[in-house]
Amino acid sequence: MTTQRTTTANAARRSETSRRAILTAAFDLAGEVGYARLSIEGIAARAGVGKQTIYRWWPSKGAVLFDAFLMLSEGAEGDPALPDTGDLEADLKTVLRATVAELNDPRYDEPMRALNTEIAHDPELAAAYAEHLERPMRELKKERLRSAQRAGRLSGDLDLDVAVDLLWGPLLNRWLQRGGPLTPEYADRVVETALNGLLPRP
Amino acid sequence: MTTQRTTTANAARRSETSRRAILTAAFDLAGEVGYARLSIEGIAARAGVGKQTIYRWWPSKGAVLFDAFLMLSEGAEGDPALPDTGDLEADLKTVLRATVAELNDPRYDEPMRALNTEIAHDPELAAAYAEHLERPMRELKKERLRSAQRAGRLSGDLDLDVAVDLLWGPLLNRWLQRGGPLTPEYADRVVETALNGLLPRP
Repeated sequence: MTTQRTTTANAARRSETSRRAILTAAFDLAGEVGYARLSIEGIAARAGVGKQTIYRWWPSKGAVLFDAFLMLSEGAEGDPALPDTGDLEADLKTVLRATVAELNDPRYDEPMRALNTEIAHDPELAAAYAEHLERPMRELKKERLRSAQRAGRLSGDLDLDVAVDLLWGPLLNRWLQRGGPLTPEYADRVVETALNGLLPRP
Repeated sequence: MTTQRTTTANAARRSETSRRAILTAAFDLAGEVGYARLSIEGIAARAGVGKQTIYRWWPSKGAVLFDAFLMLSEGAEGDPALPDTGDLEADLKTVLRATVAELNDPRYDEPMRALNTEIAHDPELAAAYAEHLERPMRELKKERLRSAQRAGRLSGDLDLDVAVDLLWGPLLNRWLQRGGPLTPEYADRVVETALNGLLPRP
């Protein structure tokens, strides 16, 4: 029994090691060669596993890449809440500037484009993305806005989903469409304009 | 000379007929089979031309599809200005609801996803898109906002590019990422929230 249990534990550990090697390889390779040239063969070679190991766990390269993002986002946890210094504008600028830096980081740019492309064409992957990656991040953003509502800084009847879309939508869209330079200053202007609105304030 | 001229004119007409047939075929096929399965062979067969005719004019299927969008956008001209009834909120809701309807139209959805995917991965195509399709549309949007500025409805120091991004970015992003239902009511909320801003108004 003890031996059996040890063997099972070792196998599970080996599986987990292989899984992480595969996901890391997929993420790195997507960044290096681009999504179009990313292949299961290439991932297997880089990870030092057989192709069949990958096919046993994932149906497609899009699915592997998705899990790679999931692994990264889980690794980034700890205290995932958005900064809350009491100054909503400053905190939002901090967070949106961080988003800009991440979108401009060459290590992330190509894999994230690949993931977004897959999502655009694959409703099933889009649903998995929404549930496991987008929604948890969105909740953190909404929680920061709720805190501002409790402090009386935002009106109580604000549609928080629309508010999140107004803040992050322009950045993601400019990045994905390459519609203009994605700078910290742009992030600041988006925050200021979204907070104050287009209509003049008295 | 006259015969020569007539022959040239006929050849130009035949070329233009082929060009339009190819672009129409590319757009329709992208909608029917999806971008991944769109091929130069398929476009040629549908358009009734040889493959070489397509390769003579375009380097890739992405380039063909891009020109198909260009042809459509030119065909849609006439009076391309945004409505200006004097009621900015109502006019913006009209326009954003039309954007929502177009993004939800199955005839446009797949070809537009394909174009956006190509743009995300191809900086050269992105530049052509920005110059020939995005910028002209953006100018029309900014012109409507300028008109509101002249009428004193919007403050004069507004960053009009950021304003356009706040209004259209959320829609495009929700559509592309399939982040939630893209409804006329969502368009209305985006307009209201962008105009008024997240901060409470006195």
